[in-house]
Amino acid sequence: MARTGRRPGNQDTRQAILVAAREAFAERGFDGTSIRQIATSAGVDPALVHHYFGAKDKLFLATMDAPIDPGELLPKIFEAGIDGVGERLVRTFLGVWDSPAGSPAAALFRSAMQHEWSARMLREFLVTQILRRAIGHLKLDPAEAPRRAALVASQMAGIVMVRYILKIEPMASMSQDEIVHSVAPTIQRYLTEPLLPPPAG
Amino acid sequence: MARTGRRPGNQDTRQAILVAAREAFAERGFDGTSIRQIATSAGVDPALVHHYFGAKDKLFLATMDAPIDPGELLPKIFEAGIDGVGERLVRTFLGVWDSPAGSPAAALFRSAMQHEWSARMLREFLVTQILRRAIGHLKLDPAEAPRRAALVASQMAGIVMVRYILKIEPMASMSQDEIVHSVAPTIQRYLTEPLLPPPAG
Repeated sequence: MARTGRRPGNQDTRQAILVAAREAFAERGFDGTSIRQIATSAGVDPALVHHYFGAKDKLFLATMDAPIDPGELLPKIFEAGIDGVGERLVRTFLGVWDSPAGSPAAALFRSAMQHEWSARMLREFLVTQILRRAIGHLKLDPAEAPRRAALVASQMAGIVMVRYILKIEPMASMSQDEIVHSVAPTIQRYLTEPLLPPPAG
Repeated sequence: MARTGRRPGNQDTRQAILVAAREAFAERGFDGTSIRQIATSAGVDPALVHHYFGAKDKLFLATMDAPIDPGELLPKIFEAGIDGVGERLVRTFLGVWDSPAGSPAAALFRSAMQHEWSARMLREFLVTQILRRAIGHLKLDPAEAPRRAALVASQMAGIVMVRYILKIEPMASMSQDEIVHSVAPTIQRYLTEPLLPPPAG
């Protein structure tokens, strides 16, 4: 029986790269890891890593089995500027989690609760793939941006917990419009209203 | 060596009650479970359950190893009425989670991510011990109260995730005042501002 498609050897190489990448990202973080280091520990040429996965962002998403690519979704949310960003963010977020991508995303969250290793990966994902991009697009004051991003993350992570993981009613079955109506102003406020100045000293 | 204190038999009885209670609450929920049923499946007299644990609320908290008793904390937050309730709630919440009680509380959350059984217990705890009390004290419109409570729960659960479990900076080390300043208005708004009416039908 003649079958076409990838030879098993390719799958092995791909797998070896993923294993090495996962270890490197979890140990040294996204910024502390280079494609070159990953290639070395997987015993392959860096060009092969690029060939299979593209840029470091994409390789990182592959190691996490990320169901979405924030690099594609986020510009649509942020490119129209700060006005209405809360609404666009909440609506897009609910759209992803209510779609078939929601189930693997919930698995990622669950896993992050269980293993410090997974928690570190999820933290790296949130910080480098989502929060950092949001800050960049919105041109927030760098002194305040991390606190604003953390506040936004806290509200969105809570929706994940209550609606998608604990499935507490009525939030589990509230319409997207209802949630957007109530939560979008929160996100808008976290991104734009004055924060308490950091304590002096 | 003569030792005073509980006889081992008492500990066994106590343990048998806890096991039966845990099973009953997880299977039939808090409201669907009676002290009498628990006593029957533990093979003890209901009076003994009351003797060891007091009311059903307290027994439920014991089965969850709950580090705090919402029945004691919540009246202080709500008895002064709706004005400033957001601030009192966020401040009390951070006080508990930043205290030694925070670590067992985080363990409860982690466990709820792993096992549907634990998730159900945490849901029962939030709904019957916290949200229901909050709704009662604040005399919210019963048609809207569950949605308001779920919105509040989503913001608070998100702080648990970001500050105490994933420990994402800068939220992990923000001062209580900073978080209260930003988050209290969110909670106040979820409890008091108009909600989108639920879809007709």
